[in-house]
Amino acid sequence: MELTAGVLNITAGGKRIVILNDETAALLGVHSSDRVKIAYGGKEVIAMANLAADFPSDRIWFYAEIAQVLGASGGEVVDVELAPMPESLGNVRAKLRGERLRNAQVFTIVKDVVEQHLSDIEVSAFLTALKIYGLSMSETEAMSRAMVETGKTLSFGKPPILDKHSIGGIPGDKTSMILVPIVAAAGFTIPKTSSRAITSPAGTADRVETLCPVNLKIEEIQSVVKKTGGCLVWGGALELAPADDLFIRVEYPLGIDPMLLPSIMSKKKAMGATHLVVDIPTGSGAKIKTPTEAYSLAADFVHLGNHLGIEVHCALTFGDQPLGCGIGPALEAREALNTLMGNGPADVHDKAVSIAGVLFELVGEKNGRQKAQEMIRSGKAECKLRQIIEAQGGNPNVKPEDIPIGPEHAEVRAEKRGRVLWMKTEGFVQVARAAGTPKEPGSGILLHAKLGDSVAKGDVLFEVYAERASKLESALALAQKLEPVVLSKKPEERMLLDQYPAKMGKNEKPVMLDR
Amino acid sequence: MELTAGVLNITAGGKRIVILNDETAALLGVHSSDRVKIAYGGKEVIAMANLAADFPSDRIWFYAEIAQVLGASGGEVVDVELAPMPESLGNVRAKLRGERLRNAQVFTIVKDVVEQHLSDIEVSAFLTALKIYGLSMSETEAMSRAMVETGKTLSFGKPPILDKHSIGGIPGDKTSMILVPIVAAAGFTIPKTSSRAITSPAGTADRVETLCPVNLKIEEIQSVVKKTGGCLVWGGALELAPADDLFIRVEYPLGIDPMLLPSIMSKKKAMGATHLVVDIPTGSGAKIKTPTEAYSLAADFVHLGNHLGIEVHCALTFGDQPLGCGIGPALEAREALNTLMGNGPADVHDKAVSIAGVLFELVGEKNGRQKAQEMIRSGKAECKLRQIIEAQGGNPNVKPEDIPIGPEHAEVRAEKRGRVLWMKTEGFVQVARAAGTPKEPGSGILLHAKLGDSVAKGDVLFEVYAERASKLESALALAQKLEPVVLSKKPEERMLLDQYPAKMGKNEKPVMLDR
Repeated sequence: MELTAGVLNITAGGKRIVILNDETAALLGVHSSDRVKIAYGGKEVIAMANLAADFPSDRIWFYAEIAQVLGASGGEVVDVELAPMPESLGNVRAKLRGERLRNAQVFTIVKDVVEQHLSDIEVSAFLTALKIYGLSMSETEAMSRAMVETGKTLSFGKPPILDKHSIGGIPGDKTSMILVPIVAAAGFTIPKTSSRAITSPAGTADRVETLCPVNLKIEEIQSVVKKTGGCLVWGGALELAPADDLFIRVEYPLGIDPMLLPSIMSKKKAMGATHLVVDIPTGSGAKIKTPTEAYSLAADFVHLGNHLGIEVHCALTFGDQPLGCGIGPALEAREALNTLMGNGPADVHDKAVSIAGVLFELVGEKNGRQKAQEMIRSGKAECKLRQIIEAQGGNPNVKPEDIPIGPEHAEVRAEKRGRVLWMKTEGFVQVARAAGTPKEPGSGILLHAKLGDSVAKGDVLFEVYAERASKLESALALAQKLEPVVLSKKPEERMLLDQYPAKMGKNEKPVMLDR
Repeated sequence: MELTAGVLNITAGGKRIVILNDETAALLGVHSSDRVKIAYGGKEVIAMANLAADFPSDRIWFYAEIAQVLGASGGEVVDVELAPMPESLGNVRAKLRGERLRNAQVFTIVKDVVEQHLSDIEVSAFLTALKIYGLSMSETEAMSRAMVETGKTLSFGKPPILDKHSIGGIPGDKTSMILVPIVAAAGFTIPKTSSRAITSPAGTADRVETLCPVNLKIEEIQSVVKKTGGCLVWGGALELAPADDLFIRVEYPLGIDPMLLPSIMSKKKAMGATHLVVDIPTGSGAKIKTPTEAYSLAADFVHLGNHLGIEVHCALTFGDQPLGCGIGPALEAREALNTLMGNGPADVHDKAVSIAGVLFELVGEKNGRQKAQEMIRSGKAECKLRQIIEAQGGNPNVKPEDIPIGPEHAEVRAEKRGRVLWMKTEGFVQVARAAGTPKEPGSGILLHAKLGDSVAKGDVLFEVYAERASKLESALALAQKLEPVVLSKKPEERMLLDQYPAKMGKNEKPVMLDR
């Protein structure tokens, strides 16, 4: 049926919605929330129909998402019909029955997710079934390949193409910002894309953005990498494995992540990576709690890498406290820059050169760690970061203290003397987010004490920074409640770790591994 | 935050949606598709927020569903805030991890489903997890009770209160229309609620509606039952176990029905049933294919009935062909009336008196089947149906031929001689729906041949009725393609039943048990 398009400037979180007059819908055989197919200018999209009683019957209204996809601005005559059942729905149902899916079946599902032919209900059921039944390695591989094939891919010329990923979970982990310049300074190609923080105080993209733009177009990225050998950009708008964002939108409220491996590996594959090191922070405060879990995840990464033609090595790292002292985009960027200038905290330096070392040895270099240290000692890595900053459009001469941090700040002090027995990573995350991270980049936490440190009564444990006084206040109140730094003279003085039922209400916040 | 309400006459299939200006949303901390809590006039509802760039910032727009719940017509000042995470989401997540849920946890989920605090994503994940893990009997009981408690309940005075349910699947099954008058004529109370057809050519409510109104209010139902001992009404608008419709909306596209038992039994409980007979049509053309499946389902019904205080007896019935000859609301109503007048097909008569007999014996009567037959023979059951028709607002003197059937009709004839070897029930369903059922009540199929009948070349196999010529044409074309009546001289002449891959494309249509 031909209808005239109208455009509503309404968004529905990426969902594709149109509004039809209810009599028009009846003629089309469309019920509320049924799918319709809209054809215009050689393009076809599937959208969910909402029905309106008092809209003109010869029109169809597009939510912003649909108008954008079709390139419609209103007034166009479009062809509308009841959409057939998506091909992939039969395959989703097969998975609900516990069947193993073949490559072609997986592909139809990923394709229909990307083209938004499947509803929230259907995607949610699919991901839940994957979570419960688990994915076989061949399904994982098929999923990864389908996610690559339904998105854009980049090419950076001659292999090896190096990459690094952290599954995240440790506040203050600014390793990538240091590792990429180290690796590029050694003459390797490392086109690093990163995510922004979802549940953490800062993602690599948030940190780097305090120094230069990170939202680059594909051609710009290729030019930066050609010039410098590396880049530090936001991967979110590049349409690499676009299925992933659609999966995350559904997984997040459910607190499940069955697509973790395909999600990470498809993006690496889309960037053309040939050698990858995956950081798995492990510890009671991290996402991965025990070495057993960490080794099992690591084995899956390596195995999947083999299937996809990426040589993968995993690094299990200490995950029981924040990395370094700064938490929050600007404070972390300062610390990363300081570390490359030779003045960073020991743990930040050690983690960066260790993981860079693993990557060097993965491509056949000897004494990888030493080589990484040499890149810092010689100033080459610092110089490389400044080249990257300049190539991405920032100020290459930036000093750490030039990076603005929040004008509002306050100190949190020890109420007794003792040693730092325990650092509650989740507590720091919550306080930092209350202070304004990641949206207000100058906000965050600066640690003055770390695990094992002795403090006297009244010593500063940490400082809180904020861009607004009201947020500083909320963050301090939360810090008092959560007590993220636990002091004791001896370990055995703190035998009671927590109570159940919880003293402060259950924390049902889902843990999402970064991807 | 206080905002002024505007009302949009748009519906979203029952989903609760509001539209906010995006800057207003940012102030509230609301992202697109986040939940907001709206308070007005002592009521609170949770809705999903869509965001609009060019809507005034001091307003909130309600989709029709929200306006109705709040009783808002526009202009009201309402209080809007970011909704907290629904309490039940933690319990949904527990089920995703495979935990058994306790009564209180089940209750929070059902309550939040009814109040629409859970999104499609969350409900879908929950139902998928139930489908995969299965429900324990204690979860099934808790679910049934929660579904009763979150809806309306009716009371019809002194027990026993009798009831009958069919899980459906056999086109032409008009048993309830005959059984209810039989049972009421014997002096028992049987307040029967029924559904409309979803995937079949007619539900009991559709059939009865050709004789009298079925969409009665609760007080009207109570008055009808007081007068006549029975009723034949549509249960859909009574808000008995309202969670069920919300579950079905999600289950239907997925083709799963983990909530089947709680769904059926909660509605019976809400109607105050004490004795229930459940018809389980069994056969290769029915929803339940094998006696093994049928007995297993029957055992679950009886067991759950015990827990809920309902005495349940299941009847496994022959399910390999349509029941009687008429398929479609009007054709079936005619046949039911004829059967009560002593002139119906043998199988329709037999099924009705057999199941009524089971129900009589369940409440302690002897020779139940004989008693049921006596109700028909004496004319008491016919008289009772006419009383019920009158009490519900129809014409008590209606003759079968008064019930209008489609003016367009055509015959489908045998292309060779033979015996009817196989009746494809799903084929008849599709042809009847193509002819216009259930929406066009005069449309449908009238069978002239049934299993085992001998036909000569050119004999009429069945007639197709329609209200519109175009639909008759579609139905006939489909009948030619599907060939729902399979003829053969001897069974062994038709050894090839079907081919795989399918000749005509896969039929992925979900089977939904009626509930």
